[in-house]
Amino acid sequence: MAYTQYYTPTHVYFGRETEKLAGEVLKEHNAHKVLIHSGSGSAEKSGLLDIVRKSLRDNGINFVELSGVKPNPRLSLARQGIEICKREKVDFILAVGGGSVIDSAKCISYGSLYDGDVWDFYMGKHVERRIPVGVILTLSATGSEMSNSSVITNDEKTPNDKNGSNNDLGRPVFALMNPELTYSVSKYQTGCGSTDIMMHTIERFFHKGPNLEVTDLVAASVLRSIIDNTEIVLEKPNDYDARANIMWAGSLSHNGLTNMGYESTGDWACHRLEHELSAIYDVAHGAGLAAIWGAWANYVKDTCPQRFATLGKLVFGVEDADYAIKAVVDTFKSFGMPTNLKELGIDATDKVCRMLAEKASLNGKKTLGNFRILETEDMFKIYKAAK
Amino acid sequence: MAYTQYYTPTHVYFGRETEKLAGEVLKEHNAHKVLIHSGSGSAEKSGLLDIVRKSLRDNGINFVELSGVKPNPRLSLARQGIEICKREKVDFILAVGGGSVIDSAKCISYGSLYDGDVWDFYMGKHVERRIPVGVILTLSATGSEMSNSSVITNDEKTPNDKNGSNNDLGRPVFALMNPELTYSVSKYQTGCGSTDIMMHTIERFFHKGPNLEVTDLVAASVLRSIIDNTEIVLEKPNDYDARANIMWAGSLSHNGLTNMGYESTGDWACHRLEHELSAIYDVAHGAGLAAIWGAWANYVKDTCPQRFATLGKLVFGVEDADYAIKAVVDTFKSFGMPTNLKELGIDATDKVCRMLAEKASLNGKKTLGNFRILETEDMFKIYKAAK
Repeated sequence: MAYTQYYTPTHVYFGRETEKLAGEVLKEHNAHKVLIHSGSGSAEKSGLLDIVRKSLRDNGINFVELSGVKPNPRLSLARQGIEICKREKVDFILAVGGGSVIDSAKCISYGSLYDGDVWDFYMGKHVERRIPVGVILTLSATGSEMSNSSVITNDEKTPNDKNGSNNDLGRPVFALMNPELTYSVSKYQTGCGSTDIMMHTIERFFHKGPNLEVTDLVAASVLRSIIDNTEIVLEKPNDYDARANIMWAGSLSHNGLTNMGYESTGDWACHRLEHELSAIYDVAHGAGLAAIWGAWANYVKDTCPQRFATLGKLVFGVEDADYAIKAVVDTFKSFGMPTNLKELGIDATDKVCRMLAEKASLNGKKTLGNFRILETEDMFKIYKAAK
Repeated sequence: MAYTQYYTPTHVYFGRETEKLAGEVLKEHNAHKVLIHSGSGSAEKSGLLDIVRKSLRDNGINFVELSGVKPNPRLSLARQGIEICKREKVDFILAVGGGSVIDSAKCISYGSLYDGDVWDFYMGKHVERRIPVGVILTLSATGSEMSNSSVITNDEKTPNDKNGSNNDLGRPVFALMNPELTYSVSKYQTGCGSTDIMMHTIERFFHKGPNLEVTDLVAASVLRSIIDNTEIVLEKPNDYDARANIMWAGSLSHNGLTNMGYESTGDWACHRLEHELSAIYDVAHGAGLAAIWGAWANYVKDTCPQRFATLGKLVFGVEDADYAIKAVVDTFKSFGMPTNLKELGIDATDKVCRMLAEKASLNGKKTLGNFRILETEDMFKIYKAAK
């Protein structure tokens, strides 16, 4: 029996000052001892963490803290969080930050109720239990605030591995989303975030099998809003409505809505090809995606040019495959993104491309993609074309 | 603090044969004794109920049954369900049908864990507890399979009252959605359903305050799909893709997505004005909405013609208020709907319109609407204009 599922249990509170609801909402969820998990200091500097601490104290909720999550969140820090949760009997994790903090929190939430090595869950083991995770979002990008996904970089390996774990227990139980908290995000990080958001829908858009018109139209709506509103915030970073549109589009883009009713969950080859780049070169995920997408699109286009043409029609008003590819690449450029590996700062020699392709395919043991299945040699050619 | 919430916990299983998952999914939700609640016989005749019974038996789940729900579901039948649930210690309700069955199931679910009169919840009392409800959907219309809403007709009053109860405990915990189950829905009922779906988004679209572009675009996508695909199924009732689009659009139209980020939940005056019609004349809800909308739209248009023009632009490609109103009314006509009270079979004399307006406004104690606030006199004029 072929069927698709849609499951987005995250309770979203959206609007100005929603971060102040933290204590109240945690209390509703019967949280007693919370781990406040955050990044490298901006939530402290901005005063956000003080607001959160006050809100928890006002509601009589005890907490411990672990900060220091970096982009491409590291396994080693998550291990520290797991230790804290076990020792302190933490029963709720509050992630205050962007996708890296949320993904790290998810990793901690899996590991805290597990006796084995949490990395197991990033090598395919099924998650059976977790501590619930709530989110205060400060960056519109990964959609992790509603998604079932967590991506962790294993910094105990050389070179680093970057793997994902997808399961419904990874969906945060609530998300407090105040667009104002993203005003301070730099132009570059805004561009990276918007690229990531677009790619979550674009990856879903390209798949084998029939499409649901309503899902195609909703997907195009998400993409159109991201394009329109990123243009605005790159000029006016404090535009509330534009930041709000990007923030909500970011959640919709990765919660399953934009592939609802499709037989597969999407292509995702670009994400896997990019994970090798950010694992090894520690580049921003969005920038890596922008650098690789055009090469992928041109490589796979002939599989079904009509699908690219449909993207062009619905998002850019022109039903033409080549036009659509150029329009997406131009959009990434307008976001200030690199659109090849050189601009990303990687010297993609044949040797480097070969190494990346071997890693992405687990030395030929794994194919990537769904719209078109990629073998190791295809991956090599795409990296080379992205040079 | 002004914020909006988005909360759609319903776990959707979408595709052919998903009704066969009933037992398995109920088991996952720890159901032990289920009330199978259904309509006036079509689920029995089609063999659907036998499939459901078998699925429950195969999974070792006990059940009792209550059928007989009619359109505009009656309080008296729900009371019977509540008695059964209390007597039989039912811990899960499975609604097999369309919105009427689901709404009746929700009413039973509230009343079964309440010592007072369940009608209290339809007079404004807050629901604190409920038996969980799951759904097998056989009609695309009310969106009740994901919504927080239940509307019940109190047939113990003369004339009947029709009231709603909105609360998050009313959201079904799962919905099994097989578009094939809607193949047998008649042209007229399909038209009514599609009108209801459109109206759930149109009611949300018209509200005071700022709009979120992404939500406007998603709303337009839902409307566009309904229009495109209803046209198809009225010709080809067994078109899977078209039925699938309508079914999913029906859920999206009423789960909160199409007003996410708006300051209000929408206008809803037409729904209230229509409830008086279906309470008294027992007309189909969708048909009643189609009969009243044009009159409402022309009456309130001057409040903000631009909002109507935006609807026209996003859904019909023409940014003009009058064009948009005519296009929506023409759409309802093309669905086979009445677009005035006479076509609906109601002789709307001044006396009748006055009576309807008095009832809708609780004898002048209540206003309706949000885009434009309507007093009793406004309601009278709208009923009259819809004559």
